[in-house]
Amino acid sequence: MKVVTLGEVMLRLTPEGYGRFVQADRLLTAYGGAEANVAALLAQFGAHAVFVTKLPAHELGLAAAGALRRYGTDLSYVLYGSGRLGVYYLEKGASQRGGKVIYDREGSAFARSLPDEYDWDGIFGGADWFHFTGITPALGGNCLHIVQRACREAKSYGATVSCDINYRASLWTCEAAREALTALMADVDVCISNADQVTQVFGLRAQGEGNAHDAVLAGMLAERFGLRGVALTRRRSVTASENFFSGMYYDGKAYFSREYDMLIVDRVGGGDAFAGGLIWALGNQEAPQAAVEFAAAAGCFKHSVEGDVCLASEQEVRAVANGMTDGRVSR
Amino acid sequence: MKVVTLGEVMLRLTPEGYGRFVQADRLLTAYGGAEANVAALLAQFGAHAVFVTKLPAHELGLAAAGALRRYGTDLSYVLYGSGRLGVYYLEKGASQRGGKVIYDREGSAFARSLPDEYDWDGIFGGADWFHFTGITPALGGNCLHIVQRACREAKSYGATVSCDINYRASLWTCEAAREALTALMADVDVCISNADQVTQVFGLRAQGEGNAHDAVLAGMLAERFGLRGVALTRRRSVTASENFFSGMYYDGKAYFSREYDMLIVDRVGGGDAFAGGLIWALGNQEAPQAAVEFAAAAGCFKHSVEGDVCLASEQEVRAVANGMTDGRVSR
Amino acid sequence: MKVVTLGEVMLRLTPEGYGRFVQADRLLTAYGGAEANVAALLAQFGAHAVFVTKLPAHELGLAAAGALRRYGTDLSYVLYGSGRLGVYYLEKGASQRGGKVIYDREGSAFARSLPDEYDWDGIFGGADWFHFTGITPALGGNCLHIVQRACREAKSYGATVSCDINYRASLWTCEAAREALTALMADVDVCISNADQVTQVFGLRAQGEGNAHDAVLAGMLAERFGLRGVALTRRRSVTASENFFSGMYYDGKAYFSREYDMLIVDRVGGGDAFAGGLIWALGNQEAPQAAVEFAAAAGCFKHSVEGDVCLASEQEVRAVANGMTDGRVSR
Amino acid sequence: MKVVTLGEVMLRLTPEGYGRFVQADRLLTAYGGAEANVAALLAQFGAHAVFVTKLPAHELGLAAAGALRRYGTDLSYVLYGSGRLGVYYLEKGASQRGGKVIYDREGSAFARSLPDEYDWDGIFGGADWFHFTGITPALGGNCLHIVQRACREAKSYGATVSCDINYRASLWTCEAAREALTALMADVDVCISNADQVTQVFGLRAQGEGNAHDAVLAGMLAERFGLRGVALTRRRSVTASENFFSGMYYDGKAYFSREYDMLIVDRVGGGDAFAGGLIWALGNQEAPQAAVEFAAAAGCFKHSVEGDVCLASEQEVRAVANGMTDGRVSR
Amino acid sequence: MKVVTLGEVMLRLTPEGYGRFVQADRLLTAYGGAEANVAALLAQFGAHAVFVTKLPAHELGLAAAGALRRYGTDLSYVLYGSGRLGVYYLEKGASQRGGKVIYDREGSAFARSLPDEYDWDGIFGGADWFHFTGITPALGGNCLHIVQRACREAKSYGATVSCDINYRASLWTCEAAREALTALMADVDVCISNADQVTQVFGLRAQGEGNAHDAVLAGMLAERFGLRGVALTRRRSVTASENFFSGMYYDGKAYFSREYDMLIVDRVGGGDAFAGGLIWALGNQEAPQAAVEFAAAAGCFKHSVEGDVCLASEQEVRAVANGMTDGRVSR
Amino acid sequence: MKVVTLGEVMLRLTPEGYGRFVQADRLLTAYGGAEANVAALLAQFGAHAVFVTKLPAHELGLAAAGALRRYGTDLSYVLYGSGRLGVYYLEKGASQRGGKVIYDREGSAFARSLPDEYDWDGIFGGADWFHFTGITPALGGNCLHIVQRACREAKSYGATVSCDINYRASLWTCEAAREALTALMADVDVCISNADQVTQVFGLRAQGEGNAHDAVLAGMLAERFGLRGVALTRRRSVTASENFFSGMYYDGKAYFSREYDMLIVDRVGGGDAFAGGLIWALGNQEAPQAAVEFAAAAGCFKHSVEGDVCLASEQEVRAVANGMTDGRVSR
Repeated sequence: MKVVTLGEVMLRLTPEGYGRFVQADRLLTAYGGAEANVAALLAQFGAHAVFVTKLPAHELGLAAAGALRRYGTDLSYVLYGSGRLGVYYLEKGASQRGGKVIYDREGSAFARSLPDEYDWDGIFGGADWFHFTGITPALGGNCLHIVQRACREAKSYGATVSCDINYRASLWTCEAAREALTALMADVDVCISNADQVTQVFGLRAQGEGNAHDAVLAGMLAERFGLRGVALTRRRSVTASENFFSGMYYDGKAYFSREYDMLIVDRVGGGDAFAGGLIWALGNQEAPQAAVEFAAAAGCFKHSVEGDVCLASEQEVRAVANGMTDGRVSR
Repeated sequence: MKVVTLGEVMLRLTPEGYGRFVQADRLLTAYGGAEANVAALLAQFGAHAVFVTKLPAHELGLAAAGALRRYGTDLSYVLYGSGRLGVYYLEKGASQRGGKVIYDREGSAFARSLPDEYDWDGIFGGADWFHFTGITPALGGNCLHIVQRACREAKSYGATVSCDINYRASLWTCEAAREALTALMADVDVCISNADQVTQVFGLRAQGEGNAHDAVLAGMLAERFGLRGVALTRRRSVTASENFFSGMYYDGKAYFSREYDMLIVDRVGGGDAFAGGLIWALGNQEAPQAAVEFAAAAGCFKHSVEGDVCLASEQEVRAVANGMTDGRVSR
Repeated sequence: MKVVTLGEVMLRLTPEGYGRFVQADRLLTAYGGAEANVAALLAQFGAHAVFVTKLPAHELGLAAAGALRRYGTDLSYVLYGSGRLGVYYLEKGASQRGGKVIYDREGSAFARSLPDEYDWDGIFGGADWFHFTGITPALGGNCLHIVQRACREAKSYGATVSCDINYRASLWTCEAAREALTALMADVDVCISNADQVTQVFGLRAQGEGNAHDAVLAGMLAERFGLRGVALTRRRSVTASENFFSGMYYDGKAYFSREYDMLIVDRVGGGDAFAGGLIWALGNQEAPQAAVEFAAAAGCFKHSVEGDVCLASEQEVRAVANGMTDGRVSR
Repeated sequence: MKVVTLGEVMLRLTPEGYGRFVQADRLLTAYGGAEANVAALLAQFGAHAVFVTKLPAHELGLAAAGALRRYGTDLSYVLYGSGRLGVYYLEKGASQRGGKVIYDREGSAFARSLPDEYDWDGIFGGADWFHFTGITPALGGNCLHIVQRACREAKSYGATVSCDINYRASLWTCEAAREALTALMADVDVCISNADQVTQVFGLRAQGEGNAHDAVLAGMLAERFGLRGVALTRRRSVTASENFFSGMYYDGKAYFSREYDMLIVDRVGGGDAFAGGLIWALGNQEAPQAAVEFAAAAGCFKHSVEGDVCLASEQEVRAVANGMTDGRVSR
Repeated sequence: MKVVTLGEVMLRLTPEGYGRFVQADRLLTAYGGAEANVAALLAQFGAHAVFVTKLPAHELGLAAAGALRRYGTDLSYVLYGSGRLGVYYLEKGASQRGGKVIYDREGSAFARSLPDEYDWDGIFGGADWFHFTGITPALGGNCLHIVQRACREAKSYGATVSCDINYRASLWTCEAAREALTALMADVDVCISNADQVTQVFGLRAQGEGNAHDAVLAGMLAERFGLRGVALTRRRSVTASENFFSGMYYDGKAYFSREYDMLIVDRVGGGDAFAGGLIWALGNQEAPQAAVEFAAAAGCFKHSVEGDVCLASEQEVRAVANGMTDGRVSR
Repeated sequence: MKVVTLGEVMLRLTPEGYGRFVQADRLLTAYGGAEANVAALLAQFGAHAVFVTKLPAHELGLAAAGALRRYGTDLSYVLYGSGRLGVYYLEKGASQRGGKVIYDREGSAFARSLPDEYDWDGIFGGADWFHFTGITPALGGNCLHIVQRACREAKSYGATVSCDINYRASLWTCEAAREALTALMADVDVCISNADQVTQVFGLRAQGEGNAHDAVLAGMLAERFGLRGVALTRRRSVTASENFFSGMYYDGKAYFSREYDMLIVDRVGGGDAFAGGLIWALGNQEAPQAAVEFAAAAGCFKHSVEGDVCLASEQEVRAVANGMTDGRVSR
């Protein structure tokens, strides 16, 4: 399976352990971004995962590329040029203290890139799937046009297109998001989001609570945009250290995964892992129930892994999906 | 609001993570002390927080001063001279294994200092509040006289005086504590403690259990010493990793905060954060219920922060006090 | 009390924190092995704990010896010669993600050693107890013969002999284990295991559930081999981060310890600590109920300590055994 | 002595040891900038050192402020508002491999600030000295106007004004630098630079070599701008690990310091330390020879200290200036 | 340029800084091997660098692959299967104390692999150059046959073949090396070594000293095996911290590079970097003098870089080759 | 050879790398003391090295014991009781910046111990050598009496007695040192010192320079106290990073070792390593020239090792003594 994802990569800087920014004398580096995270997970699963971006032509750009290549992502179509490497600073939360993210991503090489710079034929030739998130069109510059172009190219090559809404209030307003994403939805087959964002961005509101509510909401979204499928992550935050996590997939009927009670190591990238798991399962023609179990297991697994990228093999995720969650040591 | 606190600063040395002393090949440094911790938190809230001590005139004394200044504490009245920098070694507990503290604080520059060395007029000119703890008079040397002098000066400048009992059995006996603290209570307006210490040090015993018991006990303490207010921290230790924490404030009537179920990052300084929160709230004329909520939130927040000092802004603490405890990432 | 244990020491290499192998840029070192861990704990309790092995005659062999000597183990009878130092790579699990161990221990200096190389008279002269585990005979080479010889020598010097079954499917089959261990059981007085292993290795099956089941199973094992006592650890894995742990001792009658709900720091070596605690208690003629409480407390305590070896004093373990599990800081 | 410096503070991120960017999994943090470094050194010497800047109003801005306050710098006049915190990535060189700096400082809160935002009367009331560098006017936005305003205010309060040319080709062209700095020179009393920059920026060229050349060049510069004094640092790079360093001060006559053969720990900030040493010595009316020795000693000392800021007391620098360079341990 | 290298990758474990094995509580990881190091450097230069090996099919094998992929090496033809990952422990020397390497590489997946397992057509299709070292045939198992097969395949595809003698006394005797390498030399075009090894392994002895000696020796070697070129590294060890390094290339005439006086960060892989530089320069048809300068610069550069792999761009190496060795910071 | 040394052990706390105290957020731990360092080196050489001290009965005392036991030192005669563990803070120097030591050792368990507490018969039974330094009698309390008693016991058991003058101005005056050491010299056979200290403490002055001067001075000292031998270390400090080091031994005739030009990793304990080397060589009846070469090599070697203790085998030191100082990697 050849999967293409496209977006921005950032340098992530995190104090060690539960250190706060003001006391941190060293910051752990990681390189990630919603779409890059998906590609890196799929590469570990065995997909031919092509990640497309533009990086600054200096050593940090090379470092970002190297970090992604490490997990097998195909970076052959990455461009290098002027502009910054976006940065985000992450302070992990603990117990009642929430995590903090400070974004410093304006003016990145990617955000300054142009649709015509990319080798679309090379990128999408033979591609089975294209995935993007709502973050990319929100980045300004030509990013919306790049995504539009990519969607069109993907469709022309017969790829399935998925979009993770990933609404970020710090990047744009709900109105702007709705307008841009609505236009993009024409090319989208599978939409990934969560109930709050569906309501917030698209103004859709369902009655009731729990499973029933989410199933109805997914149905409304599917209908609105003529989607083949809708996947929702479902998270209940007890504290920064403990979350419940599960997923739902809707394709006319709603399928719910088991729910995980997680002690969190690093919660960034949980949604991306869910998306990656879903793409892998659907792309491999798994049944909806199996697919949502696999996706939720990938999302759960990510919460126990440091960094943006879910470091996991298909077997490891499948084991969790099959209920092996007692955490025993395998020797 | 100008707040003055006075006491000893120590170098705290802690193995990384959950390492035990015997295996530790490196120790994390922090500088703190009950009163310094209060001052540093108040400085972050925006108070003019003056911390008074005497430090050794060598590089470690400067390092201690620098560490406190970092968070905005005013160290203009600190003295430098001969004597040691006190040290305490802290091994964090985990699960059923309790934490360990080894004190090595005898002979500190502060403990050897004299009441007349300090610039009391500069220190207390314009001060609204003076805070000390029961640790300082327990340090021997002239420390009791220094505290007595400070209380008298504070009162003469019209400052409110608060005392956190902070009884430490390794420093003095209950009898010695009772005698010294009883004498000091004449100048104290607000007393901070917990139920066990009130009984242990002052011999006060209330009937019943839970809220009622603590309310009665606080009333007895208030009456005994003619206090304007009594605040008690209330902690239930499940294990070294999980504690329940809340607070009570009594001013004729008892006000109880919400209770927090905490996964602990670092429990040292939780009481100091509670004291700092209380002083900030009361000093800003907040209502008793709001004040105890703010104090308990500060105490809770500290348990998620590494080091002695609660690193937190007023807004962060207020958010917790308002019930935002689900630990979501703010982006 | 002089206790002898015999086995292999390995270099353990672990990513920091919850890092995965593929992302680890540094590995924490520890040196351990089931029997070495028992000896090191007993040395801390005050026993004369002799650990017998053969190490490679290069710097890493010296490093391994030094690491064990640090906690007071007597390494006077250790041999040095050709062969490798076995290595095991440990990735800690977290939440739903299980831990991983990669063994790389073939061809170790110990596995290549010969029964006649060791100074058996020096080793067992005056010994009260000899302890080995089922890992050693599984290592191939002459290891089974070395254990047989050691058992015989131990008995000839009047020592009590204990064996921790410690079945490892990666080292040998159940059939091979059964055959080898059955032969060795003739010299064993006290057998330590868990219910699953008893069934798996010896094919013993008891009816029922819970305490009753384990008591019957222990009785069957005791009868089969004419054992003086059987001890079982009892673990319930909720996730990699939370386990319930307790122990049972059977000497005709079954004694159950309290059960601990543990937040896990490092679960390797928990069973070894249980064994060490049991040997110390039984060797000091404690009553069965006290002995199993002490053993279970040692096992529980280990889960809160980094590394293979339970770093703990007798007093610390006794405190936990006595129910002091609220993790308060001792100052 | 009250000294004011004004400029931008950046977060500096450096791989540990001699690590390269592409392999760095953690980055050491430091906060600095040419003018902040000067202020922090002067504060350690005992000056009332006021540093003026504008920082982003988020946690990293607070962290930057805290880092500078740690060494005693007065940050009372710092503004907080919108904009980024500038970042620079530093890879240390070693032997034949040169160091690398990647600047990422555009759009900083300081660069976006306006001259009228600052409290000039508070800043310069009672000031004896104002120091700035050629970096600040190069930052774009209103930075040139801020510096012009500051110079004018400084002069109006009777302060001596010094400027370190600090030409950075990545920020502006020589022509732009010449034009802007020429205008500013009208208010400058003491100019600090090195021979290459004097020629490059101002087009001044002296005959000959070595001391004579530099003395003539300094004279030309002094004459061109009617300066009271000119100081030049003189560096000879053997490799990234070994440099020779000395200084010259010219006030009509040229004074040369001793030359240091340095094994370099961290060469960033060497020139700032030289400037700080010079200001301290001249501001305290030391004779020119003594002043240049003190300045060069401060510059040399910095090369042995990690981070941007020269961490040193006046006594330590004076000892080096007096020839105590054999590096013996003082106990 | 497509270059193929083939050999074993090992996990390298190094104490931090100048720590000795016996005191190291953590070990830095790196993955390397003589041929992998060459491939990784060439990939950074822009070559299509294919590295061929067999790795264990567990997480450490994946980690090794990831580490090499990070720098752009093409690992498409790597096999995964049973066997160990070889390990080598490296203790850095300092001053008069020499470095130490403990090899633990027997039984690796690569050493157990078979010539027919590899996809030789895929590997060598379009290849311009094949490089191997004398370490691989020394590893036992089928390694000699694998190299023979690779040489034959390389020649059949028209690739230039280079061999770095890399004699290791711990792996085989001189006699064994001579026999094996003599057989392989039939296919070799360019031989890389140093004067000592040429004499030791092939018994060639030249008169005289210095440049003349090495030129004659290279000529003898070229003649003996009908080589197109011979390259020698030339190292003078003053201490573990300071070495002089240069190179010579002989193609009928001898070309000597400049000599570098190096302060060493990490001397492992210096020869591999020399080989990589030489292959890049010769493969790009550079003149012999330029080629040996580039090769020596790459070798020198490596000594300033942590890890096995020379992390450097072509431009960085070219700058050193052009004499830019003063180590100035490039901003 | 059984060697006994006696003295205080301290916890040494050092910032990482070249960090200064004021910026250090973590401190590396080591445990050492002049006499403990000698014992630990001798244990590595293969001596039965008994180290005698009294440690505090808390976890840090156990940690200190463990650290020494790690290298094979026999701690069987160590006492545990009340009192502190002495601490010393070490900041490494670099280039022109000298190192710094802050001692905080008053009131240690050892300094409070009494001569009669120790088991002198066990300690000295079978002892060949007793070594102490001038630091111990300077520690106050009963330390002088303890040393006197130990000397007397040593002599009564026929042991050779050596004393390293190790004068520390921070502990006592020259006059006090002279008086105490003069009394002790009656029992001393071999005195170790350096030329400066001989003059400073004993007021002995020799004419001339260099070798001749030191030979004469040693002769004067030998004569004054009827010594069998006098050994002097000879150090020339260029900077904190580079020292020249050699030794001299005098037994009626003067023997000079080769001189080492050292790049320093950690210079603490160099003199102790020299003493340990000398004792080992003399105790094994090596000739004077060989003995001083071995001692100087041990001293030189130590400068390349982190921590207080020279981590080295006899073979490693002998290699350096034999001139193998080019630091090549041994594989």
